[in-house]
Amino acid sequence: MALGVAILGCTGSIGRSAIAVLDRHPDAWRVVALAAHRNGSGLAELVNRYRPDLAVMVDPRANGEPATDGTRQRTGREALIEAATHPDADIVINAIVGAAGLEATLAALAAGKRLALANKESLVAGGPLVMAALRGGRGELVPVDSEHSAILQCITGEERPALRRIILTASGGPFRTWPIERLRRVRPEDALRHPTWDMGAKITVDSASLANKALEVIEAHFLFGLGYDAIDVVVHRQSIIHSMVEFVDGSVVAQLGFPNMELPILYALTHPRRLPDEGTRRFDPVAGGDLTFERIDPVRFPAFRLGVEAGRIGGTAPAVFNAANEVAVAGFLEGRLPFHEMGGVIESALAAHRAVSVDSLDTVLGADREARETAAEAMRALSC
Amino acid sequence: MALGVAILGCTGSIGRSAIAVLDRHPDAWRVVALAAHRNGSGLAELVNRYRPDLAVMVDPRANGEPATDGTRQRTGREALIEAATHPDADIVINAIVGAAGLEATLAALAAGKRLALANKESLVAGGPLVMAALRGGRGELVPVDSEHSAILQCITGEERPALRRIILTASGGPFRTWPIERLRRVRPEDALRHPTWDMGAKITVDSASLANKALEVIEAHFLFGLGYDAIDVVVHRQSIIHSMVEFVDGSVVAQLGFPNMELPILYALTHPRRLPDEGTRRFDPVAGGDLTFERIDPVRFPAFRLGVEAGRIGGTAPAVFNAANEVAVAGFLEGRLPFHEMGGVIESALAAHRAVSVDSLDTVLGADREARETAAEAMRALSC
Repeated sequence: MALGVAILGCTGSIGRSAIAVLDRHPDAWRVVALAAHRNGSGLAELVNRYRPDLAVMVDPRANGEPATDGTRQRTGREALIEAATHPDADIVINAIVGAAGLEATLAALAAGKRLALANKESLVAGGPLVMAALRGGRGELVPVDSEHSAILQCITGEERPALRRIILTASGGPFRTWPIERLRRVRPEDALRHPTWDMGAKITVDSASLANKALEVIEAHFLFGLGYDAIDVVVHRQSIIHSMVEFVDGSVVAQLGFPNMELPILYALTHPRRLPDEGTRRFDPVAGGDLTFERIDPVRFPAFRLGVEAGRIGGTAPAVFNAANEVAVAGFLEGRLPFHEMGGVIESALAAHRAVSVDSLDTVLGADREARETAAEAMRALSC
Repeated sequence: MALGVAILGCTGSIGRSAIAVLDRHPDAWRVVALAAHRNGSGLAELVNRYRPDLAVMVDPRANGEPATDGTRQRTGREALIEAATHPDADIVINAIVGAAGLEATLAALAAGKRLALANKESLVAGGPLVMAALRGGRGELVPVDSEHSAILQCITGEERPALRRIILTASGGPFRTWPIERLRRVRPEDALRHPTWDMGAKITVDSASLANKALEVIEAHFLFGLGYDAIDVVVHRQSIIHSMVEFVDGSVVAQLGFPNMELPILYALTHPRRLPDEGTRRFDPVAGGDLTFERIDPVRFPAFRLGVEAGRIGGTAPAVFNAANEVAVAGFLEGRLPFHEMGGVIESALAAHRAVSVDSLDTVLGADREARETAAEAMRALSC
């Protein structure tokens, strides 16, 4: 009997990869709910193909499509929560971009779903809330990020206290070797020239600044319960080793393969089991070439350093880091902020914020709002 | 309560590494029986230090030492079996070199022990007997070889049918890049100039000829139940990745670290758990340097090709390969056989043998004896 799946963010790059995975295994899973932000034609196409019970357009201003027989069509954030808690959904894939994903995460966990989480903001901004929801209920959280999926695969079957250290790998971004002077002249098109073409603009800039890796460090802290001193990051340009773990006896285990978004999605659906799948390119270590490792240069990548610092401060600080980074990236992409000043915007927002513990969604959303304001203000002072 | 451990081959390199591991964890394990082949003073030193219940010298011609209070001292192969089945031994570490190890393996498994197996010949020559002993009893088999330990660590917590392929890594030996012409002039001292200094001469020559890797392929076949088409070998000069596995969903998991014999021994004692241990050098991917992978050249390494072929033939063929290889290595070390002719000796023995299925220890020992004779004959024809 096929398990029901709800896909939140079905028209984005993770959503499309998830659809590709489900298409290869029609006996294992069926789509029961789909939600998109504002891509009306993309959603309509998927609705026609899968005839889910519920289709949601989150942005009420987006152009809706005429209803399809057998599919209820709704708009707005309440409808998104309805998709995240759909009674026929055994698994919810949360591939929403941004802070809106946190509410859906909490709702899906409260409803006892297996949550396949690609929305970084859920754990970065609301980590303590998400972990409390997990502890208190029947819900289950499985990461979709390739790095965190790698870690989960490495520790499956091990006792939790056996985990001593996480070594996240980072591609290092396109500016890893640029002279610092040249970093001052990076344009949006330089940052978007990333080998993985189908990522969105936001995550591509985050990969170039390594802000993305700081977000992943914070996610790893919550997902796997290790302190920040036990989470290392190493630059690994080939993106073959997706991450490693070190156990208390000194043994290191890594998950690897050619870069691919579908495998971590598939694993999130099947963990701790595995389903035979021929859809991804078979790994060949010789064809993969030499594997290299370098340390991160904290001077070159202030956003990385600030993000990990925010993680260490804890409470609302990671939410502030995330919000200020979103403002800075948007400013950079609109040509209003130089690449090397993004760190300054984030630093200003963190300096202006007094972190408090995360006890409610309102606390998170308040910190997020405040950070966006101080970041925007800092950006006006620094802008081109 | 400390578990009892018997160490067979306690004065060799694996035995000494095992002692080092036990020394760091006196609360976890205590030595109850020790056996050595003929190193009397080495055995006496260990007996004095650990006061086991039983100390065995396998070779009755070796010089015995006066008995120590509280330790029974015995000699001969029957005494070795007594050590392998000692009632106080929960774990038996079998680090015997050569075919003599098979009998001890079968006895330990029949007695329901956890067998930490470093003796390759047990599985290569007697694989079907060992697997039958495992299926029929309460015994447990855990590999000590770093490659097989790596595989075990990678699949722990996974369902057996999830394993699709094993990728064994091989250092490639010192002659990996020598011109074929130069291989004709390899002397024993060239082969023994191996980076890992404390290995014995036999395994060092086997590493240079890659015969050792063929033995490991056969071991992996029995240990993990995969066909030979699903066991690949890749040359990885740095010996950082100890082996990899591919699962049915295409995901690859590897175990890695700086080369070290103590970690796989420790893991064999604790599997599927892990014990905190600070005795091995902590892994640092940046300090480890670039990782490279190459295919094996079957022309350069005939012993490898012949060993895998013997594995595919099955039955007594792997025992014949192993015995003929032992004869050839001894001939090379004594200066009687050129390095590049070792393959010819093995090929002759395999060609002269008609493989039958392995139904008893006598069948294995008969094939071993026959192979040694035909190999010695072939060697006389080829010798320098």
